[in-house]
Amino acid sequence: MQKILRMNKLYWLLIAVPIAIIGEFTQMPPLTLFLFACVALIPLAGLIGESTEMLSERTGPRIGGLLNATLGNAAELIITIVAIKEGLLELVKASITGSIIGNLLLVLGASLFLGGLKYGRQKFDRVRAGQNSTMLLMALIALAIPSLFSESIGPETSPRVEALSLGVAACMIVIYALAIFYSFKTTADTPLTRPSVEHGHAKNLWSLRTSLIVLGVATVAVVFLSELLVGTVHPIVKQFPFITEFFLGIVLIPIVGNVAEHIVGVQVALKNQMDLSVEISVGSSLQVALFVAPVLVFVSLLFGHPLTLVFNQFELIAMIAASVITALVSSDGETNWLEGAHLLMVYVMLALAFFFLPA
Amino acid sequence: MQKILRMNKLYWLLIAVPIAIIGEFTQMPPLTLFLFACVALIPLAGLIGESTEMLSERTGPRIGGLLNATLGNAAELIITIVAIKEGLLELVKASITGSIIGNLLLVLGASLFLGGLKYGRQKFDRVRAGQNSTMLLMALIALAIPSLFSESIGPETSPRVEALSLGVAACMIVIYALAIFYSFKTTADTPLTRPSVEHGHAKNLWSLRTSLIVLGVATVAVVFLSELLVGTVHPIVKQFPFITEFFLGIVLIPIVGNVAEHIVGVQVALKNQMDLSVEISVGSSLQVALFVAPVLVFVSLLFGHPLTLVFNQFELIAMIAASVITALVSSDGETNWLEGAHLLMVYVMLALAFFFLPA
Amino acid sequence: MQKILRMNKLYWLLIAVPIAIIGEFTQMPPLTLFLFACVALIPLAGLIGESTEMLSERTGPRIGGLLNATLGNAAELIITIVAIKEGLLELVKASITGSIIGNLLLVLGASLFLGGLKYGRQKFDRVRAGQNSTMLLMALIALAIPSLFSESIGPETSPRVEALSLGVAACMIVIYALAIFYSFKTTADTPLTRPSVEHGHAKNLWSLRTSLIVLGVATVAVVFLSELLVGTVHPIVKQFPFITEFFLGIVLIPIVGNVAEHIVGVQVALKNQMDLSVEISVGSSLQVALFVAPVLVFVSLLFGHPLTLVFNQFELIAMIAASVITALVSSDGETNWLEGAHLLMVYVMLALAFFFLPA
Repeated sequence: MQKILRMNKLYWLLIAVPIAIIGEFTQMPPLTLFLFACVALIPLAGLIGESTEMLSERTGPRIGGLLNATLGNAAELIITIVAIKEGLLELVKASITGSIIGNLLLVLGASLFLGGLKYGRQKFDRVRAGQNSTMLLMALIALAIPSLFSESIGPETSPRVEALSLGVAACMIVIYALAIFYSFKTTADTPLTRPSVEHGHAKNLWSLRTSLIVLGVATVAVVFLSELLVGTVHPIVKQFPFITEFFLGIVLIPIVGNVAEHIVGVQVALKNQMDLSVEISVGSSLQVALFVAPVLVFVSLLFGHPLTLVFNQFELIAMIAASVITALVSSDGETNWLEGAHLLMVYVMLALAFFFLPA
Repeated sequence: MQKILRMNKLYWLLIAVPIAIIGEFTQMPPLTLFLFACVALIPLAGLIGESTEMLSERTGPRIGGLLNATLGNAAELIITIVAIKEGLLELVKASITGSIIGNLLLVLGASLFLGGLKYGRQKFDRVRAGQNSTMLLMALIALAIPSLFSESIGPETSPRVEALSLGVAACMIVIYALAIFYSFKTTADTPLTRPSVEHGHAKNLWSLRTSLIVLGVATVAVVFLSELLVGTVHPIVKQFPFITEFFLGIVLIPIVGNVAEHIVGVQVALKNQMDLSVEISVGSSLQVALFVAPVLVFVSLLFGHPLTLVFNQFELIAMIAASVITALVSSDGETNWLEGAHLLMVYVMLALAFFFLPA
Repeated sequence: MQKILRMNKLYWLLIAVPIAIIGEFTQMPPLTLFLFACVALIPLAGLIGESTEMLSERTGPRIGGLLNATLGNAAELIITIVAIKEGLLELVKASITGSIIGNLLLVLGASLFLGGLKYGRQKFDRVRAGQNSTMLLMALIALAIPSLFSESIGPETSPRVEALSLGVAACMIVIYALAIFYSFKTTADTPLTRPSVEHGHAKNLWSLRTSLIVLGVATVAVVFLSELLVGTVHPIVKQFPFITEFFLGIVLIPIVGNVAEHIVGVQVALKNQMDLSVEISVGSSLQVALFVAPVLVFVSLLFGHPLTLVFNQFELIAMIAASVITALVSSDGETNWLEGAHLLMVYVMLALAFFFLPA
């Protein structure tokens, strides 16, 4: 519910959808088209999230939890699948990394910073924070193993490297599934996904049919706009030599994909509901790392562009830095604006380094 | 005592001892011989452990603690010394690594997983867990320093690299000795080694003479079977090209060496004695890292095949991953089956990666 | 105040000042000259610290806190600026590293070890320790980013590497400033700098004029002796081939610069004031990492020898090892002599490795 209430204000951004579509057929300059496609994806991602939550309300907590756990980052999943179809595998891996670190550093950082300015010290559940840190470490180990071993195994396209990636991806899905199963067993809600907060306004519920239609239409629109967005990557990189495909993938695209988390996470922090705020940002990171990434590895096989889990050293450094600082900041179950500022500054330094990396 | 009671059931495996010996002289296929030697080593390792504990009972807690602290991994020490004599230095380093990560991930993982399934949340002493984490980190730093600096110092056989290894090995023994001394000073038992649990059945005690004879005979048998086991390594690697010497050393041999810890650790966890269970697995890891490894560095000088502490990057990655996840899982003094599953999954992913590494 | 009382005993070392100056003009052997210059710098560093604290007493806590936060490592800052002027950039980076790890491992290690021998378990504020760990991690991330990214960006002298260093240095100063601002807001004292302990003896206060004169004279003397010290580096390295410039910078020079912290930190630990003792050592490390290092990056531009934040892998390994073990040891808010011994042993192992590294 939470999300619906907050996102409403963003729905006027839907105006960017027709503009981007018209732009595509009128030779709009690629950067302008890229920006309109980005803007258009924000409310569409919101609509997918909203209809998913509406469906969960109708299907009960178990299936609803599963829906959230699998479709929670649907827009992100679609954009990356489209990019895989186009063979932009480096862009995909960069945007997975960018989404993980963006949620941990930008979204959580802004939430802690603004919440801390308003309330001073804010508290949240230490046990959950510890579980999140363990899951972050599991994701890190899983992504690091194929990345660090592959160089000695063979080129990224060799069957052995692909086999290792597939094996590790299967392990990641098992880890994610076990964690969801554990949370079903021990709590009523599904901690790895965004919990609903207010259940008082059942009048807002969409019918099952409306939910499914909205979900379908929004998904189709996201697919179309993703194709459009991905299509502008090469022209932009060509036109602006100081913007690399890597920078687009690791900084710009994930910011778009995380706008919803950003807005909701900060709003919730400003209401001093830190458990939920941490859950939104860290939960979304974990979902991208332990579910979206391994699913993409399997999906990519269908498109003949097999994606491996071989991330470059800079992506690994960024994920390690983001995970460790998040774990440390959240370990005492208390946060303040300074800790939010720490997370934001780590993001700024990483973004700077990514900017200076040559193609 | 604990161990004796549990191991009894394994003594029928002693039948593998004569089979392996006969196999050696009847040209048994190397893999079959390897397996029989492995099986035969399990009860023999148990007998060494048992006679050591019997001796400790007779010699009082101080000397008994020292005996456990030095002979607790005697079978492992013997196998590796035999391998050093044969010049299989990479196999030795792989099996040290495998023993460390096997105890942390497989033994502790299975204990937490099965104990957690039976009891839900299980608790243990946070302070001891914190001390163990610090010791694990000390071991990691000690092993990482020669490994990471050596490449810039010279080839692994250069006198400077050997000098650094010897210096660090001496430091490790000092660290281990100080920790044992500290535990003597602050507690009655010796936390770095397996504590005895039940002292009620003194009737089971062996005489000093029996203990020494069993220790002597079992040691001789372990030496003989180790030679046999190590002798099969080259034929096996030659016959099965997908099994590397590294994989044998890091996965297969340590599993054999840790069967006793495995069985006792899980049994104790199933009795909800988590302090002891954690102590068995983590304590055994620490003993291999901070005592067996540096002792081997000095012992190897006697055989003219100087062993250095230069581990390859994959061994270091595995040890870092295993130590950090163990420290994180145990940091809150509470465990559940999900955390056990995490440890097991890290082991599976590492084993996969080791399997795909070419020779 | 603390410092004044303790340092008094060291002022007879001022005798080394004229000896070193005479030595400079009488062709004293470089190693002897180096040692006299080192000894002379100890009381001079103490005088700068003392006059800074006297000034702080006169200017009120805010400005006093700022003075401590900026001039607390003035001697170190001067030595490194002189070395930059001479173009000894590797020496500067090594001595920054050496100062960070020396404060964490040698100063804190000796304090915990000796304090623990006297008092058994010693306690300090966990919350502050957690904040310090977060700041250490921030420093580590900031120093690691340019170091690890630069190799792929270009040679160390390329404009892009310099731009990244300058950008990250600016971020570090922001991080440091925010932390000081936060501590002003939340507490009366300034946790990132050495807090005064006893305020009872105002009679010892120097006049503003005396403080400024002492500060001025001591600063001039430190500048002069630094030139002298730095001038002996090349002759020493030439004369003693087993001493590298790197070893001088990372082990010997920082020990000199940290003598004051060493003495005061240990004395305070022996009075069981562990909060202050931890603050002195860790605070000084943080000041070097987050203030001295980035300031040097900007100052170096004035001398035409631009310093970057590109540390070599060994410096990074040492800083990571020192930070992680410090964070782990201090995480439970309790220390004992064994933990002090751990820190000291890590230093010994690192120093050994630095010794064996070729030029």
